[in-house]
Amino acid sequence: MLALTMGEPAGIGPEISALAWQALRRDGPGFVLLGDAGLVSGVPVARVASPEEAEAAFPEALPVLHRPLPAPVRPGRPDPANAPAVLRSIEEAVALAREGRAGAVVTNPIQKAVLTAAGFPHPGHTEFLGELAGTGVPPVMMLACPELRVVPVTVHEPLARAIARLTPELIAEHARITHDALRRDFGIAEPRLAVAGLNPHAGEAGTLGHEDEAIVAPAVAMLRAEGIAATGPHPPDTMFTALARPGYDAAICLYHDQALIPIKTLDMEGGVNVTLGLSIIRTSPDHGTALDIAGTGRASPNSLIAALRLAARLAEARRNAA
Amino acid sequence: MLALTMGEPAGIGPEISALAWQALRRDGPGFVLLGDAGLVSGVPVARVASPEEAEAAFPEALPVLHRPLPAPVRPGRPDPANAPAVLRSIEEAVALAREGRAGAVVTNPIQKAVLTAAGFPHPGHTEFLGELAGTGVPPVMMLACPELRVVPVTVHEPLARAIARLTPELIAEHARITHDALRRDFGIAEPRLAVAGLNPHAGEAGTLGHEDEAIVAPAVAMLRAEGIAATGPHPPDTMFTALARPGYDAAICLYHDQALIPIKTLDMEGGVNVTLGLSIIRTSPDHGTALDIAGTGRASPNSLIAALRLAARLAEARRNAA
Repeated sequence: MLALTMGEPAGIGPEISALAWQALRRDGPGFVLLGDAGLVSGVPVARVASPEEAEAAFPEALPVLHRPLPAPVRPGRPDPANAPAVLRSIEEAVALAREGRAGAVVTNPIQKAVLTAAGFPHPGHTEFLGELAGTGVPPVMMLACPELRVVPVTVHEPLARAIARLTPELIAEHARITHDALRRDFGIAEPRLAVAGLNPHAGEAGTLGHEDEAIVAPAVAMLRAEGIAATGPHPPDTMFTALARPGYDAAICLYHDQALIPIKTLDMEGGVNVTLGLSIIRTSPDHGTALDIAGTGRASPNSLIAALRLAARLAEARRNAA
Repeated sequence: MLALTMGEPAGIGPEISALAWQALRRDGPGFVLLGDAGLVSGVPVARVASPEEAEAAFPEALPVLHRPLPAPVRPGRPDPANAPAVLRSIEEAVALAREGRAGAVVTNPIQKAVLTAAGFPHPGHTEFLGELAGTGVPPVMMLACPELRVVPVTVHEPLARAIARLTPELIAEHARITHDALRRDFGIAEPRLAVAGLNPHAGEAGTLGHEDEAIVAPAVAMLRAEGIAATGPHPPDTMFTALARPGYDAAICLYHDQALIPIKTLDMEGGVNVTLGLSIIRTSPDHGTALDIAGTGRASPNSLIAALRLAARLAEARRNAA
């Protein structure tokens, strides 16, 4: 049983949760929604009191741990009055996972600006989860689709600043957390990591910039000295081809778009966001609240379905490893 | 009739030229190789004296304007003694195109370091062609595959320096040259250009860096004021998805890997390099000399074949437009 947070109630979360239940009710994985049962329409709903009850209810109805919202919900128009309930849904899902009553947490998208307006101090979901379920390392974002896994070393910052902030240690730390997660949660005994270069052709032996030799290569050397099967710096333009992808289990990328361009080019809908370095398993769909289409029935549940399926596989692998 | 340069004779050029002839001999497009006929093996060769003779010979043999090399060729081991002949092949192909005796120039890959050692003063093929067939604007690189066309505004320089060098004028100049080429050579009456942002999410209204507002947006505004259907800055990670690609005819990208990652992720083999802003049409395969596999028979001619086919289509469109 997976715990699915409600996310922003004025976004597409309620409708894609219902559609995901329709798609998964027969073969699973089962999940329980932590949110306001009144927001779910078009499918039968079972108000349950626990994940255990949800398990039994799942084949016949979408199980909901009903947490009523204080303010009315109008699709596309988030209300800060509901922000505390959105956060409590995340806290409660994490608590269920930490207690072992949920195998993993899957989060619906939140509307950061609304939470910030209501006093939420974190830059995003991931940092909040780091506070709730941290393990002493920074939470690391992975994006996964059937053909590719990517981990950006820097994420939401200007590109020039991201370049200036790169160090061998920062790259190696992200690679280690990725390596450990691939072993424990993805069931890969000896994960192979391909570390991307920064400059065109990975600097072409120093003629196209010094960072690949001065920053990326030392990170790869550190990792190899620790026994991790890391390679690189790889020329960024050729490492994501169909021919190159089978050569590694995850690509360690240096900046946001180096990671996100190839995976979204390959697979816009199936991409799943996985947070590595937490004490629990957490996945989420690779899209936002889509306020512009919320309530219109046009939202696709495919990324959420992929997030639920991957969460279940990771939970199973972690159980087997334990 | 297309003029195909020999490229580096110790590379895969000779073998992929022969394979391309095998693939195209029936349905064309026809081409004539400007190089040493003795390097071609495995297919019948017709030594011809002109492109006009090549036309007649093409269905039965690979036509070659025989230009013997001074030094023996050992696959994988380029000899600077042959560099002048490599350059003459390019000069002669350009001359044929300028005289209208060849519809376009298609270039086999060269080994830059060998040419440099022999005194070649240009950073690469493209700049040399700019000298031979320039039109007063800088030559601009486009990469094209069936699903996507990309034009990098900066190419072979360190990423941090490329960012520092971006200006609205530089972006607009590349976009204009692209626009004109799409109209004249690609037969697109009103080309739609999608200009990529620089920072994650195109800067998210200034919260993730100032360049998208300060540099990219003004370039788009300039272009629109000139009547060009330009849009952007687009979030770089979502503009190359299958859903987004049909929305534009070319993506104007700000740096090498922003352009090359998506196109190589989509289509490693079919990518074709097109040089825009020349008085002639020039395409080339999107790979290098592959010295490591030269002479082994393992090289794929697919990108060269795509380059020949695209060159023929562009030549036809330019003829029709004239």
